[in-house]
Amino acid sequence: MIHTDICIIGAGPVGLFAVFEAGLLKMRCHIVDVLPQIGGQLTEIYPKKPIYDIPGFPDILAQDLIKNLRQQIDPFQPTFTLGERVESLAKLEDESFILATSEGTQISCKIVVIAGGLGCFEPRKPPIPNLEKYESGKGIQYMITDPEKFRNKRIVIAGGGDSALDWTNFLADVTSELVLVHRNESFRGAPDSAEKVLELAKEGKIKLLLNSNVNKVHGENNLTSVSIEDKDKVETIYETDYFIPLFGLTPKLGPIADWNLNIDKNAIEVNTLDYSTNIKGIFAIGDINTYEGKLKLILCGFHEAALMAQSAFKIMNPNKKFTMKYTTVNGIETF
Amino acid sequence: MIHTDICIIGAGPVGLFAVFEAGLLKMRCHIVDVLPQIGGQLTEIYPKKPIYDIPGFPDILAQDLIKNLRQQIDPFQPTFTLGERVESLAKLEDESFILATSEGTQISCKIVVIAGGLGCFEPRKPPIPNLEKYESGKGIQYMITDPEKFRNKRIVIAGGGDSALDWTNFLADVTSELVLVHRNESFRGAPDSAEKVLELAKEGKIKLLLNSNVNKVHGENNLTSVSIEDKDKVETIYETDYFIPLFGLTPKLGPIADWNLNIDKNAIEVNTLDYSTNIKGIFAIGDINTYEGKLKLILCGFHEAALMAQSAFKIMNPNKKFTMKYTTVNGIETF
Repeated sequence: MIHTDICIIGAGPVGLFAVFEAGLLKMRCHIVDVLPQIGGQLTEIYPKKPIYDIPGFPDILAQDLIKNLRQQIDPFQPTFTLGERVESLAKLEDESFILATSEGTQISCKIVVIAGGLGCFEPRKPPIPNLEKYESGKGIQYMITDPEKFRNKRIVIAGGGDSALDWTNFLADVTSELVLVHRNESFRGAPDSAEKVLELAKEGKIKLLLNSNVNKVHGENNLTSVSIEDKDKVETIYETDYFIPLFGLTPKLGPIADWNLNIDKNAIEVNTLDYSTNIKGIFAIGDINTYEGKLKLILCGFHEAALMAQSAFKIMNPNKKFTMKYTTVNGIETF
Repeated sequence: MIHTDICIIGAGPVGLFAVFEAGLLKMRCHIVDVLPQIGGQLTEIYPKKPIYDIPGFPDILAQDLIKNLRQQIDPFQPTFTLGERVESLAKLEDESFILATSEGTQISCKIVVIAGGLGCFEPRKPPIPNLEKYESGKGIQYMITDPEKFRNKRIVIAGGGDSALDWTNFLADVTSELVLVHRNESFRGAPDSAEKVLELAKEGKIKLLLNSNVNKVHGENNLTSVSIEDKDKVETIYETDYFIPLFGLTPKLGPIADWNLNIDKNAIEVNTLDYSTNIKGIFAIGDINTYEGKLKLILCGFHEAALMAQSAFKIMNPNKKFTMKYTTVNGIETF
């Protein structure tokens, strides 16, 4: 059992900054995130993209903002459980909480701060019958985490966005056979990635099937082949070891949706006084919360984190008077 | 007459960042500040002090944060009236505003954003009779803007804080005679500045009077001498060209207090939905506003600026539908 003052769900920029604001008030934090690294969307989805609206940075790469925030909270010694999803929440009689993750990790805390961004990202699945049969290691996967797995294998990738193009370009040299299937004539992804894919097809290094769709999957236990239909409705069977549909990720609230929090359109309703939810001791900050006038901006989440920390402090220290000290005058005092 | 969409009163960090948020929504800004340079307190009072609680900066010198913000808003071409104090506000029949400054500059705008920080800083004056008689260029001044003015002059400085110490050290070589008067035995300012002052006194380069007070000022038209009382109540007259009491600055709301805004303890009451005041078209953001749970943090002002801009846009464009675009996806689009 991990013991902490505040358990923060979500290691994106707002969850990370919450450690700083809590730390100034002498509250310790533990962060849980389903992703294997900190940074949320910023490191997972757009690490190399510049952000222009973080105050004080004319521009900053998403991954650098996360690096800076990590350094900023370092004095407050946050601890992490990464690569695990928070599944359940129990409120005990003494008003403290116990959270449990997908891997069985348990965290005991006095305050829960949900900073889950847009939620857990789940892959968009194509409407093909029996896909589930080949999930969990039997030939179909929706994300690529270890490209080495595909060395000298036959794979079929479907999709026309950046992810499909980038992985096609990357895996062309790794696999023994690579088929890229895309339902349209042209790609949505970056033009230079698309160009590279067209070149690989011209050189015969990959097989490119445009205006086509995978519409069936076959195999007794493991996937062995897929059916691909072209624009003339002609179906061809391709033998393959893996089928990888890369149709993007879609955010879901996940298990949090079942915690009796007030939810409005996939977001948690909060009181703007302190970004508290309808359950005492649980706060929601950043993109995952909603209130009248809400803007889903990182800079708004920072403000929400600061106000949340004040209120969390009062819950944890009902009889303690708090005087705010400016860091500019006194610097940072850690534990 | 200057014409603009938004007139921002106050060129501190929050006023500056408001230009960015307004600019993203295609609204142009003009900034007025009583200080001769941008940055508010950050450049005026603590330019070289590190700030630790700006998200994404483990630490940043106050002056560097201002430099960065200036660069960040540059694409939106803000214009400035510096060194002038906004004195009056008139709301016209078409709901637009005309502001006038201490120097008679007029600004016509549709939206007024008050980002005045703690207000105008006014010098703390010692309780000496007839001080006013020698103000406005007749020998008494409370701030030093042009040290060259004192070259080969006799001056008396009073005070024991950083400002008194720093200016004493700086002016020792400039003036023909310098007397530093301090009511206590020890100084409040930085130890190394104090040490330097003590050394100058030992070397006979300045005259240091501790446990003493200036209690009278003399002169027919201009100041010619001051009376200084020591701890034994012995009064001595010192001839001087200037008397410079440096007892710090104290913030005042100034003329804004008379604009019929709802004021609570020297701060402007706002609606947290959009940080609007009780007068339609006037917003207050940053340290100058107040609401339940208000934290006087720069990072909170940034959030307030973002929400304010959304609401200002609706006032300026009542019939236009607005779709928020993330800068990360599309970059910054200027005018």
